[in-house]
Amino acid sequence: MSEFWTTEVHRDIYEMKYKSLKKLYSQKSEYQQVDVVETKGYGKMLLNDGLVMVTERDEFVYHDMIAHPALFVHPNPKKVLVIGGGDGGTAREVLRHKGVEKCVMVEIDELVVNACKEFIPQTSCVFDNPRLELIIGDGVEYVANTKEKFDVILVDSTDPIGPATPLFGVDFYKNINLILNDDGIVISQAESPYYEVEAQTSLLKVLNQVFQNLFIYNFSNLTYPGGLWSFSFATKKYHPIEDFNEARVKDSELSFQYYNPRIHRSSFSLPQFMLNNCKGLIKN
Amino acid sequence: MSEFWTTEVHRDIYEMKYKSLKKLYSQKSEYQQVDVVETKGYGKMLLNDGLVMVTERDEFVYHDMIAHPALFVHPNPKKVLVIGGGDGGTAREVLRHKGVEKCVMVEIDELVVNACKEFIPQTSCVFDNPRLELIIGDGVEYVANTKEKFDVILVDSTDPIGPATPLFGVDFYKNINLILNDDGIVISQAESPYYEVEAQTSLLKVLNQVFQNLFIYNFSNLTYPGGLWSFSFATKKYHPIEDFNEARVKDSELSFQYYNPRIHRSSFSLPQFMLNNCKGLIKN
Repeated sequence: MSEFWTTEVHRDIYEMKYKSLKKLYSQKSEYQQVDVVETKGYGKMLLNDGLVMVTERDEFVYHDMIAHPALFVHPNPKKVLVIGGGDGGTAREVLRHKGVEKCVMVEIDELVVNACKEFIPQTSCVFDNPRLELIIGDGVEYVANTKEKFDVILVDSTDPIGPATPLFGVDFYKNINLILNDDGIVISQAESPYYEVEAQTSLLKVLNQVFQNLFIYNFSNLTYPGGLWSFSFATKKYHPIEDFNEARVKDSELSFQYYNPRIHRSSFSLPQFMLNNCKGLIKN
Repeated sequence: MSEFWTTEVHRDIYEMKYKSLKKLYSQKSEYQQVDVVETKGYGKMLLNDGLVMVTERDEFVYHDMIAHPALFVHPNPKKVLVIGGGDGGTAREVLRHKGVEKCVMVEIDELVVNACKEFIPQTSCVFDNPRLELIIGDGVEYVANTKEKFDVILVDSTDPIGPATPLFGVDFYKNINLILNDDGIVISQAESPYYEVEAQTSLLKVLNQVFQNLFIYNFSNLTYPGGLWSFSFATKKYHPIEDFNEARVKDSELSFQYYNPRIHRSSFSLPQFMLNNCKGLIKN
């Protein structure tokens, strides 16, 4: 079989090309183009609208870092909501925490779930977990209508174009606030601090209108443009470092490939250009 | 003029392509192919043998992080040696420290210096600094023969292929050790913790044979494969965090785009997979 390139185009200035062995899945849903490719260097790769979402090689980074900081700061998270995250990796990490009684996951695009179920068991294995409630539906509507309340909410969205656009708006976060317990924590995918300064600060401004305590933290992904990427950490009560109880990490008996207590703390230390860009918006 | 792509190939699994406007310089020296390209999104870009060394957009990251951690841990660095670093950016950051009386820079390839002098003044501006002594010559021979001694030595090398190969060997570091003052610090370009695990641990093993106190720290470059990159920190006396005197940063009145005291400390916090890979070699 002949090899080919899978290409992610970034703003007409940059392309990332992955040598590929086989196209495993390619379908257009009502929301987006969904592809799964077998690459030569990164295992199986999921792309939505041509943007790399997940690869088997580095998905541990993103999923460690979206889930564990909040779940180790909140002293007793029992109910967790994941918005998006159709590959399953985020919910998988959430449910490694034995104290979590229920994880509700609301993914708008069933094709993403189906593609990952068929081709990326490394993340989609979570769909067999009895503590997971998978809802195929619109996260915006879910948070507007649900009567449930949550300790931790993880907004595992794609970029603020296409189906995920409302997930970057103030109405969405006002509803998030209403279904979040009084000591709750909200984590959101917060874009690239190098390439998407406007999208990042725009999200922070929205979060700032709703949450008094707002922070941002970084991680280094292998297959996102520029490598450095951010999550926001919005909280009603807890401080992400002062209220981090390192002993809980050890007590959990969980092992990680990326996350550890020193990474937890240091991920909130920002390069100077980020501090300048986010001035007045965050409490890092 | 028609646009074109400048491509960096990574191990036959990955390509990084930069939309380019103009080829400014292209010469083959006795050591390597040297190119300077005007890109659409990153300003001017220097490539050696097709690998991106420096771009105007992100060179501040690498140059902040190779220079300032050592220069703010050593309490009074007066003499600094840079091996390599032909673009000038490392020496530029060194000489922003007013206490540094002399920076010797030994670059093997005059074409790199000439190309940057002509096309990348953002880094090559340092070549006008009277406190810089620029030597075009072999760094391996220089450290074997010089009678000078240094407080800080920065090994700003390319990868361990081509002209930089001896800069990753134990004989080189034994000589480095001899010309380093008793409280000296040696920083070395230490490759990608994601992609070049073998090169990284191999360098650490070499350094470990010569220096008792060895650490590794990370930074996030925009235009290196995978983003995350490392420097090693080898020291005869000082600890990179315990002996870091934050007040000296403020007293210096220097401003930075990447470096700051919290980044200094947190850059030594490693993802778990790096701790596992470097086990027994480092004191982080």
